[in-house]
Amino acid sequence: MKVALRIAYDGRDFFGYQRQAHHRTVQAELEQVLEFLFQEKIRLHASGRTDAGVHALSQVAAFSATKTIQVEALQRALSRMLPKDIQLMGITECPEDFHPRFDAIGKHYRYVVSSNDDLFGRPYVHYVRDGLDLQKMREAVRPLIGVKDFAAFSNRRKGEGDTKRDLWAIEIHTEGEKTVLDFYADGFLYKMVRILTQYLLHVGLGKISPQKGEEILHSRSRELTRLVAPPQGLYLRDVYYAKDPFQPSLCQGAC
Amino acid sequence: MKVALRIAYDGRDFFGYQRQAHHRTVQAELEQVLEFLFQEKIRLHASGRTDAGVHALSQVAAFSATKTIQVEALQRALSRMLPKDIQLMGITECPEDFHPRFDAIGKHYRYVVSSNDDLFGRPYVHYVRDGLDLQKMREAVRPLIGVKDFAAFSNRRKGEGDTKRDLWAIEIHTEGEKTVLDFYADGFLYKMVRILTQYLLHVGLGKISPQKGEEILHSRSRELTRLVAPPQGLYLRDVYYAKDPFQPSLCQGAC
Repeated sequence: MKVALRIAYDGRDFFGYQRQAHHRTVQAELEQVLEFLFQEKIRLHASGRTDAGVHALSQVAAFSATKTIQVEALQRALSRMLPKDIQLMGITECPEDFHPRFDAIGKHYRYVVSSNDDLFGRPYVHYVRDGLDLQKMREAVRPLIGVKDFAAFSNRRKGEGDTKRDLWAIEIHTEGEKTVLDFYADGFLYKMVRILTQYLLHVGLGKISPQKGEEILHSRSRELTRLVAPPQGLYLRDVYYAKDPFQPSLCQGAC
Repeated sequence: MKVALRIAYDGRDFFGYQRQAHHRTVQAELEQVLEFLFQEKIRLHASGRTDAGVHALSQVAAFSATKTIQVEALQRALSRMLPKDIQLMGITECPEDFHPRFDAIGKHYRYVVSSNDDLFGRPYVHYVRDGLDLQKMREAVRPLIGVKDFAAFSNRRKGEGDTKRDLWAIEIHTEGEKTVLDFYADGFLYKMVRILTQYLLHVGLGKISPQKGEEILHSRSRELTRLVAPPQGLYLRDVYYAKDPFQPSLCQGAC
């Protein structure tokens, strides 16, 4: 059987999504529980990695198993057995050829900045003391939208291939002491959201002109975008599919 | 010099306040930074211990040092050097005879229950799915108020001595999905707040009659109060002194 999962996790105590030797990762925790339930080797494939400290409200992952377990029973077992910082948000049987990464047509990331250095918020927002000029930040967004080569806004990994992405929108709004940046695109390069965020924050703090974006894109150089906003403010909010495998799903929202 | 500190901490990653071998504790983290700054052995005395997972918004601790460091410089150094999950909320020089525990005349603890099993709230609230009858809980509070022997509501430690305490008030209110219990007393026995909370929750869930309190107090037995609400919902909110050592303090709120 093939099963697709929607999962949320608090990234604080993980060394990122992807399995790594000697570190606690989301993938390893999930696979461990699944292997216990299926009593066979399970390999999860996700929509993409998230870095250490980055959170997810709706990561999508799928796995194949030779054995079959009723989805209802699997949901109950997972909800009970997952560690406290991983939450099952959806579960469904899916076609054998469903692939969370290759089939994804878009993603939504959110970055949360706060002007309040609240102790309990520290693992969940990026504290920026000084006021941000949202007008300028929105101005800086404009030249970035559309199909562009984002090489200058990525910490490229070897063999990443094509660095063009279709950035659909960056929406910025405030919620009390928080400034929230929402990123929508057909896909994101490695560290792209955090580098874009840091760039926009520098614009908002008056350190860089909102007109620079065009030039930076064309340069394809990381000269001006070396800085990366810290991971704790970042949330993977959604992964989009042309044919949503979670329609119908056994549960929507927390299982 | 003698220095008093007000500190907040996120209890999630601590094995409680008090120093323990081989475990991360709030006291050990603070003493380590202070010993680095003063270059001498420092022993902190706090208003009391908090258990593993319990949070504090305003724990009070004090220490003596043979060397002298300007309080302003100390505040800046501490704010920079403390780990992310400890926050300095106040600092002041204080009389040599000030003792955070013996001089305390009262304390305020808060316990937070939530009917929403939100992933990111899990380390900070106690999730109770079923509805609580606040009317009944408030009824159950009445016989507990005043100077009473709380032996039945404490997980007594050897040689704890007198188990009478003056419970000033327990106030219960709701904030959206949260039910908040505020406890005010001249002092609390070991685990008293969490045992009182669990008792009141059982009343709120209809598992025990609100009239039982009187009888339980008189029994001085833990027969009916064996259960302890989990630590993550508990916050030490304030410690009261007849003569507040933090008047004046270098900072009020986050330093």
